[in-house]
Amino acid sequence: MKNESDSTASSRIGAGRIFCIVEYDGAGYRGWQIQNNGVPSVQGALEYGLSKVANVPVSTTCAGRTDAAVHGTAQVVHFDCPVVRDQRAWLLGVNTNLPDDVRLLHIDNAASDFHARFSATARRYRYVIYNHSLRPSLMRNLVTWQFRPLDADRMHAAAQSLIGELDFSSFRAVGCQSKTPFRNVHFINVTRYHRYVVIDIQANAFLHHMVRNIAGVLMEIGCGKKPVSWCGEVLALKDRTRGGVTAPPEGLYLVNVQYPEAFAIPDLGLGPEFLQQPE
Amino acid sequence: MKNESDSTASSRIGAGRIFCIVEYDGAGYRGWQIQNNGVPSVQGALEYGLSKVANVPVSTTCAGRTDAAVHGTAQVVHFDCPVVRDQRAWLLGVNTNLPDDVRLLHIDNAASDFHARFSATARRYRYVIYNHSLRPSLMRNLVTWQFRPLDADRMHAAAQSLIGELDFSSFRAVGCQSKTPFRNVHFINVTRYHRYVVIDIQANAFLHHMVRNIAGVLMEIGCGKKPVSWCGEVLALKDRTRGGVTAPPEGLYLVNVQYPEAFAIPDLGLGPEFLQQPE
Repeated sequence: MKNESDSTASSRIGAGRIFCIVEYDGAGYRGWQIQNNGVPSVQGALEYGLSKVANVPVSTTCAGRTDAAVHGTAQVVHFDCPVVRDQRAWLLGVNTNLPDDVRLLHIDNAASDFHARFSATARRYRYVIYNHSLRPSLMRNLVTWQFRPLDADRMHAAAQSLIGELDFSSFRAVGCQSKTPFRNVHFINVTRYHRYVVIDIQANAFLHHMVRNIAGVLMEIGCGKKPVSWCGEVLALKDRTRGGVTAPPEGLYLVNVQYPEAFAIPDLGLGPEFLQQPE
Repeated sequence: MKNESDSTASSRIGAGRIFCIVEYDGAGYRGWQIQNNGVPSVQGALEYGLSKVANVPVSTTCAGRTDAAVHGTAQVVHFDCPVVRDQRAWLLGVNTNLPDDVRLLHIDNAASDFHARFSATARRYRYVIYNHSLRPSLMRNLVTWQFRPLDADRMHAAAQSLIGELDFSSFRAVGCQSKTPFRNVHFINVTRYHRYVVIDIQANAFLHHMVRNIAGVLMEIGCGKKPVSWCGEVLALKDRTRGGVTAPPEGLYLVNVQYPEAFAIPDLGLGPEFLQQPE
């Protein structure tokens, strides 16, 4: 059994920059970021747990600020901390002080120039669709329900038109703050696992709502409403109003963030765990 | 894609005995059975949804009354109904009138002598353990967390002492109402799926807390606190006070109920879906 915490359980961590890797169910939160109006945020919950162990206020920076109801299986975070604790004390203590829909998976010392957001070279998301005539009950907050039968191969073929350094204006939220509409998509794979259809996408970075807008277009193609060529056509229009609907947040997971090897950020495997195969 | 509702979508159902198959997340309920004090019950939620479509009060009988926080992936239920509706109207209408943690998977006419509880020849449960040093977040209500590493092979070997028509007094809740402590266990298989360890058990019927008491003993053996022989020793003592702790309800699922073939109750496959393999 993989056990991230045991191998270095006696490490001393703190008195400088720290990084951690966090999993969370976004259903109960208005997104990652702390907001002034006091609504629940994952960042707020995490900073509370870290502060309880550090015994000083903690202010965190994350790799990708996920939206309301979006999940993370390996969100990467850094913060600066004047105190030192054993790795085991951090892991167990923070998890004890987090709500049960957030957990700390890993924590360790970071290089002083490590930055969870600006050092990242790639982000990877998975969008999980439950494809069945009847809505899910057990997994209702962890998947997006699509009752029309989806052809994952059609979706995969369509998605290949999005690979490379391209102008994603057609897949960008109206309120997106980015200075440029260009992003470099490294790969998109669409695969069926039993009743789940999973869109797996990696890019250097993403525009606001970019994965959900891509998922919206691919689902229209997957159920046969639009031809395979439509995905590339939408891209070429560079016009958000000509794209598909923004797919719901429930099925979206931030699953991996990549950094230069020198930072030694560990790869904890690809979540969410319920899609994993028998060993 | 398996789609239970399409094959007989035009059937007329009602004016007699009806059976249905129901999935539910037990986390929000004090168990299956309606109680006088008005606490949330799965039965109450289901009868509300059925009554809305039938337009008359509906009173149901189930195959196995699950406890608080226990789940069902294929609970079987019967009721008598004077009105007739299309199968599609039942399926879509009832699901629209159920809370989002309960769903109706199948509904059809039943023989007049079919009884969800008394016609059943076997019940099958799965107990799902999340075996990792850190508690789960995404699946927190759908699995039982065990942080000690479990040896599934040891658990499987130990469980084989429970097969057959035996006196399960050692695995029976103190308040169990059954007249006899004998039950006939058909099989118990313990298997690891990645970080999940699953106890899969079928019997003619179960005593109160029997699966959870078996799971409690098997986890003690699986983590090495007790020898493999301990399971059979506990059984032989016929004394509940010498058994293990009752394992928590979160990981327990009623996954199948069997009936004589003449009743034509369909097999919808083995849940929960998150353990299923790619097709």
